[in-house]
Amino acid sequence: MLTFTLDASDGAARAGRMETARGMVETPMFMPVGTQGTVKAVLPRDLEEMGSQILLANTYHLYLRPGAELIQKLGGLHRFMNWNGPILTDSGGYQVFSLGAMRKLSEEGVRFQSHLDGSYHLLTPENVMQIQAALGSDIAMVLDECIPHDADREYARASTDRTIRWAERCLRARVRADQLVFGIVKGGMYTDLRERCVQELCSMPFEGFAVGGLGVGEGEALLHSIAASTVGWLPEDRPRYLMGVGRPEDILNAVRAGFDLFDCVLPTRNARNGTLFTSAGKLSIKRAEFANDSRPLDPACDCYCCRNFSRAYLRHLYMAGEILSSVLNSLHNLYFYHRLMERCREAIRLEQSDFWSQASATLRAQLD
Amino acid sequence: MLTFTLDASDGAARAGRMETARGMVETPMFMPVGTQGTVKAVLPRDLEEMGSQILLANTYHLYLRPGAELIQKLGGLHRFMNWNGPILTDSGGYQVFSLGAMRKLSEEGVRFQSHLDGSYHLLTPENVMQIQAALGSDIAMVLDECIPHDADREYARASTDRTIRWAERCLRARVRADQLVFGIVKGGMYTDLRERCVQELCSMPFEGFAVGGLGVGEGEALLHSIAASTVGWLPEDRPRYLMGVGRPEDILNAVRAGFDLFDCVLPTRNARNGTLFTSAGKLSIKRAEFANDSRPLDPACDCYCCRNFSRAYLRHLYMAGEILSSVLNSLHNLYFYHRLMERCREAIRLEQSDFWSQASATLRAQLD
Repeated sequence: MLTFTLDASDGAARAGRMETARGMVETPMFMPVGTQGTVKAVLPRDLEEMGSQILLANTYHLYLRPGAELIQKLGGLHRFMNWNGPILTDSGGYQVFSLGAMRKLSEEGVRFQSHLDGSYHLLTPENVMQIQAALGSDIAMVLDECIPHDADREYARASTDRTIRWAERCLRARVRADQLVFGIVKGGMYTDLRERCVQELCSMPFEGFAVGGLGVGEGEALLHSIAASTVGWLPEDRPRYLMGVGRPEDILNAVRAGFDLFDCVLPTRNARNGTLFTSAGKLSIKRAEFANDSRPLDPACDCYCCRNFSRAYLRHLYMAGEILSSVLNSLHNLYFYHRLMERCREAIRLEQSDFWSQASATLRAQLD
Repeated sequence: MLTFTLDASDGAARAGRMETARGMVETPMFMPVGTQGTVKAVLPRDLEEMGSQILLANTYHLYLRPGAELIQKLGGLHRFMNWNGPILTDSGGYQVFSLGAMRKLSEEGVRFQSHLDGSYHLLTPENVMQIQAALGSDIAMVLDECIPHDADREYARASTDRTIRWAERCLRARVRADQLVFGIVKGGMYTDLRERCVQELCSMPFEGFAVGGLGVGEGEALLHSIAASTVGWLPEDRPRYLMGVGRPEDILNAVRAGFDLFDCVLPTRNARNGTLFTSAGKLSIKRAEFANDSRPLDPACDCYCCRNFSRAYLRHLYMAGEILSSVLNSLHNLYFYHRLMERCREAIRLEQSDFWSQASATLRAQLD
């Protein structure tokens, strides 16, 4: 199955197209996070309008509530949430480690208690594939263990070996022919473990590869050095996904290093907290200086929010605790991420080599 | 100034058009409530799309936060909230009595403490006109005192007399020629006081009349009997507004009695609480029976919510505490109110006399 077409490159950065059962995705691309079957505060209609091409949904959350079987009976996740474009589901592993209680890890899988009601559950490589097949996502991720950033070498080695064995089991448990499966490169902060993990995974028929376990507290320098070295070992002809990272400047760096896909809750979570991304840096809308500011949030932005509302109004909505604050801020922040990716794709296709340093400097400028 | 054109009538019910500085409003019409400069959880674009023709905004809330002067400096309320159609503002009186602390009523006006920060304020007939002029609404309401439903005759009489004196002062304090001013008929539960109040107000040059102080705990029978008798004394050639009432069946009754304009927080507040209006009666989306219900909320409804989402999804959003629950439920409930008004207008224009009893029976059918 031909999944990925490389159209242009500029250094390690690349622009391409990823084919899925529900259509084509231009890369580099940011995937808005729809944790519980909704990108928080944003209608699917507005996601489409702002240029979202693929969403991420969290298997852990949907498995616990409302349940994957229920979603399957209702016609699958796309129909459930009324999103007809591609969806990537994670395996649930990350949330088991970040949200679940009483985790017990074994070769079989991971047992945990639901953060919702304390009920007991088991995720295995086999059942995460079944769950993702029931959800009907277009891209399924393998089950992996989260390695703490300060794990010692022996822990990281053993965990990475298990993740590789789990990856094989996931592929053997594959359910749907129309669902792409991505492997996940682990190895903690040890580059030799990362390299070996890449070699092992590349011998398996994955349609794409993710780099996981970064952005977990290791610091910016280490994040980017490990991401850049790892991506260099991955095959050119398959999409490369940097999981859960992150800030606009991190994504820019990672695009430059050769990654194609990104997801992060930052644009929507920040939006709800009143932190907004603009072409002049981050801005906290609650600040008193914006109370009588008639300018749009970002004069350089043409999103629905910036075309129609002032900073003063957005501050008012935030201070008054209005739902529309989350709605408008989320529309803007996601639009900002999508436009950043669009400019990256353009820069790569048109070989605008000066784009990268300029964009990087701008993103680092902070109003606060 | 010709404000109101009567196009058709069916018994006491009437269909017409009300002219404002920002265009025409078909009547009978429901006005969504935008308390703090936003109809909660709904974008102005979506209000327009669903057929909202005029909004109500609360002077009390906007005066306290962000302040009427600030809104004026920013170009007025329409620009602030990006709503280009007509806006009616109340005088703030109702919220002073329902939300403000330490009220002190005098002939001058009403002193109160802000529910937000305890600061002291004074509303007078003169300054509520100035505040509403600063907001720039298309219809301003006079200052009135809320009479408790169980007030004795002497209290109601004295309060009604003061409201009449305040109404005169409001007209004298009129600021903008492009802003219509509506008087408010009070009188508590005493029909003779209501009748006298109508007579007094009709001798003043108001562009429209509201009936206030109903739906405050007096019970359905008394509400409708007082509303019906009061509306009969009002002049035919000016719009008649029943303030703050209410449930779909109440509005239907009041349209039949001859009212033209309505507002209520019920559709949006119920939406946020998961209570939804349908052609088969009210429905509580949190009920377990909807967990696997693939049908739209209301199969007879063609709103964005009903065209695209199942009851199971809406229940999931509600149970998961997702913002999109409030967004979709609000879109649906407001659409329901607007379609009800549209069918009323049609029934009047086409003399579909059997509409009223059928609609009334349907609205009284309750699923819960």
